Amino acid sequence: MSHLLKISTQKRSKMLDITVQVQAEVKKQDIKQGLCILYCPHTTAGVTINENADPSVRQDILAQLEKLVPLKGDYSHLEGNADAHIKASIMGSSVTVIIEESRLKLGTWQGIFFCEFDGPRQRKLFMNIIAAD
Amino acid sequence: MSHLLKISTQKRSKMLDITVQVQAEVKKQDIKQGLCILYCPHTTAGVTINENADPSVRQDILAQLEKLVPLKGDYSHLEGNADAHIKASIMGSSVTVIIEESRLKLGTWQGIFFCEFDGPRQRKLFMNIIAAD
Amino acid sequence: MSHLLKISTQKRSKMLDITVQVQAEVKKQDIKQGLCILYCPHTTAGVTINENADPSVRQDILAQLEKLVPLKGDYSHLEGNADAHIKASIMGSSVTVIIEESRLKLGTWQGIFFCEFDGPRQRKLFMNIIAAD
Repeated sequence: MSHLLKISTQKRSKMLDITVQVQAEVKKQDIKQGLCILYCPHTTAGVTINENADPSVRQDILAQLEKLVPLKGDYSHLEGNADAHIKASIMGSSVTVIIEESRLKLGTWQGIFFCEFDGPRQRKLFMNIIAAD
Repeated sequence: MSHLLKISTQKRSKMLDITVQVQAEVKKQDIKQGLCILYCPHTTAGVTINENADPSVRQDILAQLEKLVPLKGDYSHLEGNADAHIKASIMGSSVTVIIEESRLKLGTWQGIFFCEFDGPRQRKLFMNIIAAD
Repeated sequence: MSHLLKISTQKRSKMLDITVQVQAEVKKQDIKQGLCILYCPHTTAGVTINENADPSVRQDILAQLEKLVPLKGDYSHLEGNADAHIKASIMGSSVTVIIEESRLKLGTWQGIFFCEFDGPRQRKLFMNIIAAD
């Protein structure tokens, strides 16, 4: 079963906590056991799993990525967002989460984050659920 | 269903667009809905999804990885390809793409890339398709 | 089918080879064909696939990550492990491996590694197997 999440980002770089929306959809689809795949169809955004308790963690992830892959650099791509493409591949285009008893089996401190690297924009995230015994 | 893609790389570092081959195999296997997993069995190569419209994006990704993890460095591994191992883990060993109506559900600008970091070589990529309702 | 791997790490940063445990569980569950998903429920640890023949490769991966994301830095997160969170997202929270004839279909030199970035600790890894035809 496939589902589309619509995401609106307000800044150039942002890690958006989407855990609640994803969990709500898992519940709605009434899948007891299986896998939830979240897939980002954009090339200047990604998806990751990290701490959602202290917002400073997200801030540190984005700041360090900016140090490693600065906005301004000696890039060939002329659209001014080469850094965003590189960051997207470092974070990855999808995450897989286990579903158990109709719930995302996340760790205590984990949240799922849409990683915007070239916003603000209207974005999409594909969600796919695979039922398993 | 499992399938083997054979890949020939011509340079030490290269992002090879394999979208067309993967899509052809998905069509051939006649799976309507599901997941396509691409798995790289090598430790000095990886797989990623990024823009396939402008080739300069790939060039920038490889150049920035080279800045972050240079070929020559203070490495312990004596085979001269420590950088390639590190780059492989940063990019990742597999990607998962959703299949819908027998097509890879990629974003408009997305392509699937085999990432060679220690070529030129003959490489393999495992492709696995999971059918789902 | 879901399974819990218990992992004990002895150092702050460590790549622990868990291939043998994972393979043993795959055999035990008697799944012929499918996927094995390994999911790390922690936010300061990750999982990756790389060479398990020469231990110096792991050492180089950890050392380079430490250069790119040093323990001491200008971080906002006040728990002293901001670097570990960032490294976790760079490596990723899960890996997917194909199962064929009840065996993990890894490359010749590949092993599966639990990546500890904020140990020593007692850790968990979720393992999920999806059977496929």
